[in-house]
Amino acid sequence: MISYETSQNMISLLPVGAIRSERVFLTAALGRVLAEDIVAQEDYPTHPTSAMDGYAMIHTDFAEHKALAILGDNPAGADEVAQVESGICIKTFTGSLMPLGSDTLIPIENVTVNDGLIMIDKPVPAGFAVRPVGESYKAGEILIARGTTIGFAEIGVMAGINQVMVSVAQRPRVSIIATGSEILDIGQTQHHAGQIRSSNNYTLEALVNQLGGEAIGMGIVGDDKQGIMERFDEALRSSDIVVSTGGVSVGDYDFVKHIVPKLGAEVIFKGVNIKPGQHVMVAQRGSKFIVSLPGFAYSSTVTFILYVAPLMARMMGCANPYEPIEATLKVPFAKRSNKSEFTACNLHFEDGRYWVDFEGKKAGSSAILTNLLGNAALMICGEEDGDLEAGTLVRVIKL
Amino acid sequence: MISYETSQNMISLLPVGAIRSERVFLTAALGRVLAEDIVAQEDYPTHPTSAMDGYAMIHTDFAEHKALAILGDNPAGADEVAQVESGICIKTFTGSLMPLGSDTLIPIENVTVNDGLIMIDKPVPAGFAVRPVGESYKAGEILIARGTTIGFAEIGVMAGINQVMVSVAQRPRVSIIATGSEILDIGQTQHHAGQIRSSNNYTLEALVNQLGGEAIGMGIVGDDKQGIMERFDEALRSSDIVVSTGGVSVGDYDFVKHIVPKLGAEVIFKGVNIKPGQHVMVAQRGSKFIVSLPGFAYSSTVTFILYVAPLMARMMGCANPYEPIEATLKVPFAKRSNKSEFTACNLHFEDGRYWVDFEGKKAGSSAILTNLLGNAALMICGEEDGDLEAGTLVRVIKL
Repeated sequence: MISYETSQNMISLLPVGAIRSERVFLTAALGRVLAEDIVAQEDYPTHPTSAMDGYAMIHTDFAEHKALAILGDNPAGADEVAQVESGICIKTFTGSLMPLGSDTLIPIENVTVNDGLIMIDKPVPAGFAVRPVGESYKAGEILIARGTTIGFAEIGVMAGINQVMVSVAQRPRVSIIATGSEILDIGQTQHHAGQIRSSNNYTLEALVNQLGGEAIGMGIVGDDKQGIMERFDEALRSSDIVVSTGGVSVGDYDFVKHIVPKLGAEVIFKGVNIKPGQHVMVAQRGSKFIVSLPGFAYSSTVTFILYVAPLMARMMGCANPYEPIEATLKVPFAKRSNKSEFTACNLHFEDGRYWVDFEGKKAGSSAILTNLLGNAALMICGEEDGDLEAGTLVRVIKL
Repeated sequence: MISYETSQNMISLLPVGAIRSERVFLTAALGRVLAEDIVAQEDYPTHPTSAMDGYAMIHTDFAEHKALAILGDNPAGADEVAQVESGICIKTFTGSLMPLGSDTLIPIENVTVNDGLIMIDKPVPAGFAVRPVGESYKAGEILIARGTTIGFAEIGVMAGINQVMVSVAQRPRVSIIATGSEILDIGQTQHHAGQIRSSNNYTLEALVNQLGGEAIGMGIVGDDKQGIMERFDEALRSSDIVVSTGGVSVGDYDFVKHIVPKLGAEVIFKGVNIKPGQHVMVAQRGSKFIVSLPGFAYSSTVTFILYVAPLMARMMGCANPYEPIEATLKVPFAKRSNKSEFTACNLHFEDGRYWVDFEGKKAGSSAILTNLLGNAALMICGEEDGDLEAGTLVRVIKL
């Protein structure tokens, strides 16, 4: 068995190929990963622009005139702008271009208006309330770098430069296959107590969607070699990554581990010294990947986060959202094995720090998916770690 | 002008009515807010279940027998289970019900198989590798509380209990209207330099969608009283919250502030001692709300986060994702006003703490939306705060 660190290194070296992109409408780009740099084509604003409502004037007039004649109005969006000369001002509104010749805006609140004249009650510094050319950005500036996940601010900035169509990374297509004759799909009638309700395929499909991929639900296939073989083949033809659950352990009905090599896939690794999920297997066929996860609900979810999420992030050219962060243990922790352990914990942010505890988390088998509800995170203990004292800085994966 | 704290109190007291729910398919519930408690109907597992591959046996047989006869196989999902008696074991796989009479599972790795018999090489404690009834949860336990935003673990747990349909809070419908004759929609031809490209409506629609609402894009309406009146009326008939940008300042073309009261809406507050966004106005007509934001891109985005996001969260019965958290200032900060200030900053997580700096952030007008790109957050300074030293604990809103 290889170590967790080695397995992560191997994932980071898998040849995922160049980013594949597609062009989508701006409003459809929310949550997608940018596949091009967004570069400013011109300075913004392109002209000096008023930042308030007031009167555009020449700053030296503060010294030379007690009153200025109002030449007219300059509403925002106006086409023509009159020229300001000494002794003259133009009423100018937020967002309007500054009239030619003016250099300063005196706010409405700072003047008294009387019979077409303004009397200056409180002068302002030169250039006051004028947005200079290029205040927001300059031509040639990279506004948003490729690899950025597009949020509301990115959408707004791209709208502001009239970026109607946007190049984004294609969603990696990820097929999910649950194996096991005991598994019953939701909605199906249970005939006897030995059947258990499917949860893995729904958990993992939700994860694929949250991570920006396109989940292909391949349903459940029983412990039947030919059936599993056919379903994997269909999945490989349909998707970039095939994720399966179950069938990788040591039992007589664990067919997946035998079938994957028969599909012409090269096994990258099988077995990692981790808990849960030591039987995880990663294989490659051409440009496609097979990630075979254990069948227990907690194990399959954790190993998906450890092995499929970084692969998807690499295909999209973005950061893996499940990179570990630091937190402080609130209670002692008893390590149970000499493996790298990923333990469900609560993560709270208090007094400027993240804190880890295990209140309400159940010890027991790797079947307990409810341990991942709420503000759950995964605490990472290394192979070499022993028991940990309260106050220890630990690494956690925020879910 | 009221204080920021008073304005937030008033938002938290607005009568938003009871949560309105709808039933959706489980797979469509990802990202929605749960509107019912999810309660376990039975213990899970319902029967003692094998957690590994091995041989089901009676623990006292370790003392009484050197070898046990293998009665047969008990694959996962099997309907009938034979009875284990003293001197007999049944091969049992991960996820199978434990055969009647058995209490312990001896793993495959701990025995030698020979001619239909197992020889025990390494005994295990009583109950080993048996998932007891109710290991995951007990009947009557609340698994997921209403108000929870549904993530992958919630989807998986609900699939596991065959929750095909789920009650979720309806998405609040939020209309977005941008006002201003200078504003040009994306894709439209610019005729002169005084026209500026729309960004507010796209930024705010993205925010509505991210927050789980349903955005209704009402486009741009020029500075025309009748036109604004009609668009607001249409928006009020279409949505739960009407959000407008522009037209609330002190200028001659700021019609929104006059029109809202004429629509029969009661102004809850107009003007808050904050920077940016001091002219923000909140009004109510029946069960609907109007939130009129300033026109500048940075101001409208910040005030949306401060006033619309908590209102939407209350309508869905969930926590506001923009609750402030604590961070440490990495550099000194010069306060510019006696208002509550919301300053764009970078937020980094390092050495177990969030740190705030302003590298790359541009000082200038409230028009600079690019300040919200990247790992941006809003640093909050109170009215009473003065300049802040490096190392000060500050509150920030993570975006």
